[in-house]
Amino acid sequence: MTRSSKVMDQKSNPNSAKEKPVSRRRLLRGASAVGAATLLAACDSGGSQEGTSGGPAIVSKKRTLKMVTTWPKNFPGLGTGAERLARRIEALSDGNITVRVYAGGELVGALEAFDAVSQGKAEMYHGAEYYWQGKSPAFNFFSAVPMGMTAPEITSWVRYGGGQELWDQLSRQFNVKAFLGGNSGTQMGGWFAKEMNSIEDFQGLRIRMPGLGGEVMQRIGATPVTKAGGEIFQALSQGNIDATEWVGPWNDLAFGFYSIVKNYYYPGIHEPGTALALGLNLDVWNDMSATEKAWIEAAAAAENDVMLAEFNANNARALDTLINEHGVTLRKFNDNILRELGRVSAEVVAEAANHDDLARQIYDSFSQARLGGMRWGNIAEKAFMDARNLSEA
Amino acid sequence: MTRSSKVMDQKSNPNSAKEKPVSRRRLLRGASAVGAATLLAACDSGGSQEGTSGGPAIVSKKRTLKMVTTWPKNFPGLGTGAERLARRIEALSDGNITVRVYAGGELVGALEAFDAVSQGKAEMYHGAEYYWQGKSPAFNFFSAVPMGMTAPEITSWVRYGGGQELWDQLSRQFNVKAFLGGNSGTQMGGWFAKEMNSIEDFQGLRIRMPGLGGEVMQRIGATPVTKAGGEIFQALSQGNIDATEWVGPWNDLAFGFYSIVKNYYYPGIHEPGTALALGLNLDVWNDMSATEKAWIEAAAAAENDVMLAEFNANNARALDTLINEHGVTLRKFNDNILRELGRVSAEVVAEAANHDDLARQIYDSFSQARLGGMRWGNIAEKAFMDARNLSEA
Repeated sequence: MTRSSKVMDQKSNPNSAKEKPVSRRRLLRGASAVGAATLLAACDSGGSQEGTSGGPAIVSKKRTLKMVTTWPKNFPGLGTGAERLARRIEALSDGNITVRVYAGGELVGALEAFDAVSQGKAEMYHGAEYYWQGKSPAFNFFSAVPMGMTAPEITSWVRYGGGQELWDQLSRQFNVKAFLGGNSGTQMGGWFAKEMNSIEDFQGLRIRMPGLGGEVMQRIGATPVTKAGGEIFQALSQGNIDATEWVGPWNDLAFGFYSIVKNYYYPGIHEPGTALALGLNLDVWNDMSATEKAWIEAAAAAENDVMLAEFNANNARALDTLINEHGVTLRKFNDNILRELGRVSAEVVAEAANHDDLARQIYDSFSQARLGGMRWGNIAEKAFMDARNLSEA
Repeated sequence: MTRSSKVMDQKSNPNSAKEKPVSRRRLLRGASAVGAATLLAACDSGGSQEGTSGGPAIVSKKRTLKMVTTWPKNFPGLGTGAERLARRIEALSDGNITVRVYAGGELVGALEAFDAVSQGKAEMYHGAEYYWQGKSPAFNFFSAVPMGMTAPEITSWVRYGGGQELWDQLSRQFNVKAFLGGNSGTQMGGWFAKEMNSIEDFQGLRIRMPGLGGEVMQRIGATPVTKAGGEIFQALSQGNIDATEWVGPWNDLAFGFYSIVKNYYYPGIHEPGTALALGLNLDVWNDMSATEKAWIEAAAAAENDVMLAEFNANNARALDTLINEHGVTLRKFNDNILRELGRVSAEVVAEAANHDDLARQIYDSFSQARLGGMRWGNIAEKAFMDARNLSEA
């Protein structure tokens, strides 16, 4: 269960051992055999964890990995995070791995990223697992579900609550191995043309909200609309939709929604801490040496830490800008609305478990971790934040 | 109070710079010069971020790094996290780096870890920066201060709020380079023999609480006592102290405090999200190749993510055990107490800025990030947690 054992127990890899002589032979060309052998032994000790081995040298084969993403080119936070993750894999590999990053639509469409990796057209993807909910609704649990978990909670579940093992079972069915590779933190409730004072105000509301959040909207009488990021501004400005959620202050500010509507609602119960994933083609993963695996895992885990930090820092600044420079009115959904959203969310999320046995196991594991996380979070982080507010009010 | 001048003159580590050419020369011995150059270029591309460089090859020299820690041997969460971080550095380095981890007292005393690294007796430390507050009170800001920041907030400040740059300035004075390398999350308020119903109940209370939290206790009339972890149980059971804080449910359960006192208070305003640090001797850091630096940084950032996940998962479970199996009564400090703790904490923390110009800059930067983080956190994570509680009550 501990990470260290996970990182360590993948030491043997039959493929890497087989290829070693080849790359080694190529290396040896042009150097005297004895001298070269000395040199190789000196320059690469071949993954011995103690560094004391006198064993054979392993030279990692050079790889170029295509990373397809679900993000627009240079999309702040998510796209730039995928890019940073790619650069870190390269840096860790000391030049042995090259990662080419493709925005959605460059190599394959954004929502085809998973299939591309599953089928080996690309070696890796970076995206949100809920995009694959058509394959199984269980994928939602590894990104975000309405009224689900915060960023630290979902990370805790995946790493120490049995989540990764279940995720591996789910992904394996599609020839994929996935890791946590970023988090957007809690998202906003969205931009609304009018004030939302009761659950009845959602009746007939045309709101851009994809996925399970959209399903919640539908059940309370709204009309969820799916629009790609680039289409939202126009739809909102032309009155084709009455409301939209997007991400959080940082991304929302960039899209300029504040120039059309001024009511900015919180909290965003539909995506309370959206996890992003780095997924690899399982054959590619299995072909990697223990060291290559360590590079991938460390880069993904580091990005999981760094991306959330970047979102939180930029969201805090952008929120101030929206309020102080653009006259946005921050509004909180009232408790009656939130209670009803909670009730309907629980229904929608529970239905995801009906898909198959594995979805049921994932739902059960997620639900247990969520309740434990709530009990602890309420007396730890939330109680502290409440206490701190008392002195700053 | 400042010992910086004393430490400053021990900056140079004459050995490290000299070693690189030697090992390279040793490598080249026995291979034809041309062949060896080809071979070196093939086996190591020298940390080019793009992996496309035609620049000079750099072969990482083998290193053994001693990591001294401030933790008891195998101490759950903190000590085991330091160990996991060390193993990850080794795994990333493909056997080029060996890390030997020392518990407090094994190579140097726990609180001497920083000096040992500063002076080059060890290459790295893992510990909490507040242990070095005798050198500058500004170190407190990089671990935890009373009523300060949560784990995601401090990470956000260090990575994207100017924190790392200020930390570098502070550490450089002592020939150290430090990174975030873990977080315990929000700690508990502590174990109390009697109920705490007003600020007057702290009068004369003998409570184990080190650092700035202890200073807050002193100013509200309690008597803070410093005891190492291993001494607390006995002091509490013999009535030499009336109360103690330690870490959180996971570690507190292991120490068995529940068998002596039953009142377990929250929130722990003295350590709202304690960051742990990986510090390196600055000469060692400067001597590292770009690739070696990437290994260190990625391992530290990954641990910053993984340790918090482990604490949260285990704290949630241990909390249930304490309540359901050991009859512990969970109690919340009332708002009057929390308000007064907030007022006094603000005083104590502000005084840390008086030490010198850099401490003032760090305090200002920290305070600004804290307020921004509060504004954002209140409408994001905290508002979500409040909303979620409505449906689960």
